[in-house]
Amino acid sequence: MLVHEADIKAQTETQAELLTRYRRIRGETEQLVDPLSAEDMQLQSMPDASPSKWHLAHTTWFFETFILQPNLPDYRLFDPDYHHLFNSYYNSLGTPFSRPQRGLLSRPDLHSVFAYRGAVDRQMNWLLAGQSLSPNLEALVVLGLNHEQQHQELLLTDIKHAFSINPVLPAYTDYSPEDDDSVDTADMRWLQIPSGEYAIGSDGDHFCFDNESPPHWQLLQDFQIASRLVSNGEYLEFIQDGGYREPRLWLSDGWAWLQQQHVDKPLYWQRREDRWYQFTLTGLQPLQDPEPACHLNFYEADAYATWAGKRLPTEFEWEVAACLHHQPDQLAKANLLEKRQFRPLAADHGQTQFLGDLWEWTSSAYLPYPGFRASADAVGEYNGKFMCNQKALRGGSCVTPADHIRMSYRNFFYPHQSWQFTGIRLAGDLL
Amino acid sequence: MLVHEADIKAQTETQAELLTRYRRIRGETEQLVDPLSAEDMQLQSMPDASPSKWHLAHTTWFFETFILQPNLPDYRLFDPDYHHLFNSYYNSLGTPFSRPQRGLLSRPDLHSVFAYRGAVDRQMNWLLAGQSLSPNLEALVVLGLNHEQQHQELLLTDIKHAFSINPVLPAYTDYSPEDDDSVDTADMRWLQIPSGEYAIGSDGDHFCFDNESPPHWQLLQDFQIASRLVSNGEYLEFIQDGGYREPRLWLSDGWAWLQQQHVDKPLYWQRREDRWYQFTLTGLQPLQDPEPACHLNFYEADAYATWAGKRLPTEFEWEVAACLHHQPDQLAKANLLEKRQFRPLAADHGQTQFLGDLWEWTSSAYLPYPGFRASADAVGEYNGKFMCNQKALRGGSCVTPADHIRMSYRNFFYPHQSWQFTGIRLAGDLL
Amino acid sequence: MLVHEADIKAQTETQAELLTRYRRIRGETEQLVDPLSAEDMQLQSMPDASPSKWHLAHTTWFFETFILQPNLPDYRLFDPDYHHLFNSYYNSLGTPFSRPQRGLLSRPDLHSVFAYRGAVDRQMNWLLAGQSLSPNLEALVVLGLNHEQQHQELLLTDIKHAFSINPVLPAYTDYSPEDDDSVDTADMRWLQIPSGEYAIGSDGDHFCFDNESPPHWQLLQDFQIASRLVSNGEYLEFIQDGGYREPRLWLSDGWAWLQQQHVDKPLYWQRREDRWYQFTLTGLQPLQDPEPACHLNFYEADAYATWAGKRLPTEFEWEVAACLHHQPDQLAKANLLEKRQFRPLAADHGQTQFLGDLWEWTSSAYLPYPGFRASADAVGEYNGKFMCNQKALRGGSCVTPADHIRMSYRNFFYPHQSWQFTGIRLAGDLL
Amino acid sequence: MLVHEADIKAQTETQAELLTRYRRIRGETEQLVDPLSAEDMQLQSMPDASPSKWHLAHTTWFFETFILQPNLPDYRLFDPDYHHLFNSYYNSLGTPFSRPQRGLLSRPDLHSVFAYRGAVDRQMNWLLAGQSLSPNLEALVVLGLNHEQQHQELLLTDIKHAFSINPVLPAYTDYSPEDDDSVDTADMRWLQIPSGEYAIGSDGDHFCFDNESPPHWQLLQDFQIASRLVSNGEYLEFIQDGGYREPRLWLSDGWAWLQQQHVDKPLYWQRREDRWYQFTLTGLQPLQDPEPACHLNFYEADAYATWAGKRLPTEFEWEVAACLHHQPDQLAKANLLEKRQFRPLAADHGQTQFLGDLWEWTSSAYLPYPGFRASADAVGEYNGKFMCNQKALRGGSCVTPADHIRMSYRNFFYPHQSWQFTGIRLAGDLL
Repeated sequence: MLVHEADIKAQTETQAELLTRYRRIRGETEQLVDPLSAEDMQLQSMPDASPSKWHLAHTTWFFETFILQPNLPDYRLFDPDYHHLFNSYYNSLGTPFSRPQRGLLSRPDLHSVFAYRGAVDRQMNWLLAGQSLSPNLEALVVLGLNHEQQHQELLLTDIKHAFSINPVLPAYTDYSPEDDDSVDTADMRWLQIPSGEYAIGSDGDHFCFDNESPPHWQLLQDFQIASRLVSNGEYLEFIQDGGYREPRLWLSDGWAWLQQQHVDKPLYWQRREDRWYQFTLTGLQPLQDPEPACHLNFYEADAYATWAGKRLPTEFEWEVAACLHHQPDQLAKANLLEKRQFRPLAADHGQTQFLGDLWEWTSSAYLPYPGFRASADAVGEYNGKFMCNQKALRGGSCVTPADHIRMSYRNFFYPHQSWQFTGIRLAGDLL
Repeated sequence: MLVHEADIKAQTETQAELLTRYRRIRGETEQLVDPLSAEDMQLQSMPDASPSKWHLAHTTWFFETFILQPNLPDYRLFDPDYHHLFNSYYNSLGTPFSRPQRGLLSRPDLHSVFAYRGAVDRQMNWLLAGQSLSPNLEALVVLGLNHEQQHQELLLTDIKHAFSINPVLPAYTDYSPEDDDSVDTADMRWLQIPSGEYAIGSDGDHFCFDNESPPHWQLLQDFQIASRLVSNGEYLEFIQDGGYREPRLWLSDGWAWLQQQHVDKPLYWQRREDRWYQFTLTGLQPLQDPEPACHLNFYEADAYATWAGKRLPTEFEWEVAACLHHQPDQLAKANLLEKRQFRPLAADHGQTQFLGDLWEWTSSAYLPYPGFRASADAVGEYNGKFMCNQKALRGGSCVTPADHIRMSYRNFFYPHQSWQFTGIRLAGDLL
Repeated sequence: MLVHEADIKAQTETQAELLTRYRRIRGETEQLVDPLSAEDMQLQSMPDASPSKWHLAHTTWFFETFILQPNLPDYRLFDPDYHHLFNSYYNSLGTPFSRPQRGLLSRPDLHSVFAYRGAVDRQMNWLLAGQSLSPNLEALVVLGLNHEQQHQELLLTDIKHAFSINPVLPAYTDYSPEDDDSVDTADMRWLQIPSGEYAIGSDGDHFCFDNESPPHWQLLQDFQIASRLVSNGEYLEFIQDGGYREPRLWLSDGWAWLQQQHVDKPLYWQRREDRWYQFTLTGLQPLQDPEPACHLNFYEADAYATWAGKRLPTEFEWEVAACLHHQPDQLAKANLLEKRQFRPLAADHGQTQFLGDLWEWTSSAYLPYPGFRASADAVGEYNGKFMCNQKALRGGSCVTPADHIRMSYRNFFYPHQSWQFTGIRLAGDLL
Repeated sequence: MLVHEADIKAQTETQAELLTRYRRIRGETEQLVDPLSAEDMQLQSMPDASPSKWHLAHTTWFFETFILQPNLPDYRLFDPDYHHLFNSYYNSLGTPFSRPQRGLLSRPDLHSVFAYRGAVDRQMNWLLAGQSLSPNLEALVVLGLNHEQQHQELLLTDIKHAFSINPVLPAYTDYSPEDDDSVDTADMRWLQIPSGEYAIGSDGDHFCFDNESPPHWQLLQDFQIASRLVSNGEYLEFIQDGGYREPRLWLSDGWAWLQQQHVDKPLYWQRREDRWYQFTLTGLQPLQDPEPACHLNFYEADAYATWAGKRLPTEFEWEVAACLHHQPDQLAKANLLEKRQFRPLAADHGQTQFLGDLWEWTSSAYLPYPGFRASADAVGEYNGKFMCNQKALRGGSCVTPADHIRMSYRNFFYPHQSWQFTGIRLAGDLL
């Protein structure tokens, strides 16, 4: 069974509220593609990324495949081809269409994909506005909405990567932040956390993905953790100190990656005539020293921490620290998608940036929690099968929806990947 | 000097006629993309192919770069970025934009590319309608038009390849040929050509590319050459006889290609429940036995010829045979682009298919003719630098414009390439 | 500082005893290459493996580089070129010679490498037989000996892989085990381990690598663990049930590996006319059902466990279970290198196989223990920089020296690697 | 039929003379490996090259497979495994052992390979010393000896490449040429050749490979050709003029090769502190300006010729010029294998270097001569199947046996290959 009891309990909203939420989230996706043309939405710049149009269709496919088709009698697929084309990785539903070739699907065209969204939305509306759903089905709708929100974030990071290839360096939006050189980065303070046995994982009061459960205890030793993310200015010092040329700072696989790819600076950074710039969703912008350094991969994060004489936190340390240093209204204040900043912001005083701004690499491998079992049905391919070779990240980013993130949320990427909004929070042992 | 004297002589048309031709050819390109959406025109399915939108822009770039910019005083580039983005391979004009990433240029959008075409067309119109051009400049315009026609053909073969990746198998046009099982293939006859010293290359009366000159003499021995192309039915016999499994039939590099790519049939052929189909510009169609076998690469052509106890003709043999067996009105009758068949047709009796239907692989390497010298200026990169590792092909195809092809025309592709409309004409020695 | 206090304490042996150990271990290495020719010792069949000759030289390089050179006044290198050629991965000592090209070092020849060993051994003898060493230096000698033992195991697994490529399928030794079909595999029992807080890591009484420390506590939940390794017969059932064809059994990266490499059986298994064989260090041998299934990679181990409705143990669960089910004389009885079996043996009744036979994949990522810090000097590159992307394995194998293995020993390999003697022990949750 | 009539006529030597020749050539091969150890003879540094031991065995396999096995009644193979292991590329004899893995065959060991040679030699001796052979069989023996001589050259170029990878830079022989700075290069003169119809190919009086026939006529235009090879000093000027940085000098595929491989100098050249060196069969040696520039590939040869305002000759021009400028005793004087120089020598006055010193790239593709037909039996795979994608080279090198080379001899390599002793002779058109 996919849906854990904890999840079911969480469904305290009425069905009417769920319908409202459905409309809001589905609408948000369409709002996000508003600045994009049909041609933009076709782009796939690497196998890890997908075209915007594909995101629009795949999220819809999820509702059609897991909710409408099994639950509506005589449901007729919008288009049988879509079943194959927009399956991401559910092998139990047939061999998915080749991932690196998603950018070659000019057909169905954008218009048809919007029609697909409309048709599925209408059926979902009928379902949600109608008789009471089973808890299981309701949980699947909630899962589908969280799934859609994950793709909202991917849609933005994927189009950012695609635009970065184009020498014209297109801007996703024309919002141009002021040059805030005046803003000082808040000093980095060290939060001290005492050793102990801490509860980890979903609290059971809200929706969570299966990978956040079962909740369990972890033993932690005394540690300290930084009060904010590492800034561009700090990362520049690492570069200027020869960080990218000193093998002793790097993990073995990291050094191999760096040498094979001839890397000597973060993805999206450019140096033009003695000044640093970075490509952003608002086009090429001068690098702001106080802002958090972003689009770093795990190898870079780890090498920086080694250079700084620190280390990365484990995901358990992160979760405990984030909960202990919980701030009032932090979700509302955090730099998440709704702020429409599309970039991490310099921490002002008092802000800890645990939520929003950047996904934070942890030293933990992304592995199942004790007692984890994936669901036996198709949705069971959601998380479990990726629990190998990836690192856990925490905290959400400037393009994560606010009602999608929480302290127990576990994201995961391969150590070499840097196209997500990812950054560094340092930690250290206490002697 | 790019333009050979022979070429200049050929310019017997008035400038007014040239302007008419300019409009016709530029208009033809735009007509060819009529069935395509902006999303379709974005597709690049492999590094060898380019998006339709890129073809539209690059052909325009050619006129702007080689004609407008150097010849119009104070000419202002339509967009300075385009100079880089739509340069194909002219290293002397700066490093071209990475070829395999042309499909990632959602910007400029299609609308802007059409605007680019319009702006350049208006300036070209002004130039051609105005005072008398120098012979050199006029020759460059003619070169630009022939260049545009080359890209008309590529545009069609490239979109065919891109559509073939999509499981939906879109049709470029909905023209659906009748099932002409009734049509018998004309018998294959053997044309006998006596040994002798033959003139090869441009006759100097018409435009030609630099690679067709200088005209010169070649000694040929007695040979015979087939009266038509090899048909699907004949090629099927080769397959059914185990042709793709017998290494002795293949060139060493061909066998390596076949094994690495796991090839056992031509590109675009599919077998579904005991019947053969091929993907065409009109979608998936049942394979017609009498039609010429197409989308074969050189390795397949050579292996078939070996299996058949024959060989491929040299490009000189081909040119001599095609000229000697010249038929009245053959250009008008040939299956070329204007026929809008978009596929090769079965040879009816008396037809030799030297022009149109399919490009014919020759056994000749694509090499310079004796005395060939490439131009020293930028346009000199047009042909000469490709004279290595490729094979010469002759005769044009069903998507070659009629006023673009001639007996001396030399096309060239790598032996492993099969996305062009390419086929086989057999030849043999006389003992 | 490289050497942890715990290690220093462990040096209870006298210097004379250490010298005896030095001679024994160095002699064992040379005995292991006895069946090999100079040509055999040149072989490198993949980048992960090294030639036997290189192992002979590199282990010697370790003593020369870390002990003789810094500690003997006016020490003169045996050959300055060797400093570069036989450096494995210590970037702080200069760029090592390209790993995948180690097989191209015909010079120095085998004779010179033995001369190198002799020269270093004489100097080490002088050092160890002489005045009292500092604890640090003594610890480095012990480290060098453990390092040599690691390479003894690698030498055997590497030559096994190299021989497996040769169609002649050479045997490393001619010892031919009897066909022990009569031997029944002991039944698989389930050892129950109660939840609790358990001490993990080196006990401080013996030598350990830095990755086994600091010792620390881990919380474990109730679990059960199998009393023996999975056998060939059991693994065959997985194959016959279509295990290699069912994506739902596999981790996502595992399924990708399987498809790219076209894997449908374990490395070294062959099917010949309805009978299964496996390539061993004694040549090709019929597969014995009761023997442990070996040369499985992590993906195969995980898929098998999923198919069996179980899971792999964490490395902490493994260590606790192995300590709790400690058997009298188990080191002496275990199937380790000294037994010269060169293959895992069927578990007889009462045997748990925690030590010897096969390295056992755990579900744990190979990561630093809380508070771990790598040494700042060159030897600090020993373990820490590999703590990414690899899995922890436990227990030693049939080619691990008996005085090299212990319950806290952590080995590590990438999930796709299978050329080591690796196998499966199942575990499960208690509900 | 493999053996052309021309070849059979050539067999004017008695069978006794043939036996003497057999012994001499087979002995020469063994003499060439004299400076090499068993470990050296195991080396394979790239797929294009083979281990010396493999050359020793494969040349023997040729005699066993094509002569002994089919012609001696009840002949028993020396070792049935060898039939597979030492087959190079004769697919009609079964799938050959994987070429890139030849270096992994430590077994059979060198001793066994010499025993193989001895056993086959004794049987060959018996055959040749016995009753009269059929012309066909005699021709096959001659082919086998020429085949062995080809491998003598490859053996030397392959071991040179393998040694070049080893940082120790071993010398094959210790012969160390004097620093002959005093020797001036002879001036480059231009030999004028008038246009005409020239006979090309084997003269029928000597053995030739099938690719040198049928003899036929070629029309040549007036041309000029250099009186000697391009020297190191001249090639250095090309480098210093930025030749490796100017795309306009290069063929398109050549520029792509140069960029992908980051090439900026010839293979085996090194610059150490303002002085140029090259790796040779006598170890690293200072570059001598007057000596011919060697180990250039076709792309480099073509780019140099373009830079020099010249071109490469066609293979027909080369053959005609070499025959017309035939010098008395040139074979005896030429720098061929028997001179044991192992490097090209500066041309002294009057020498044309057509034979020996370096293989000379021609602009011709390696293609069949008119009327060429490969043999239908296994030996027919000898030459014909390689007639694609390669360039023709002429003239032999400093490691070609003197009785193996002739004016009509056609060698062939891929344009990117440079591990053979290859160099440049310029040619030009006459206006």
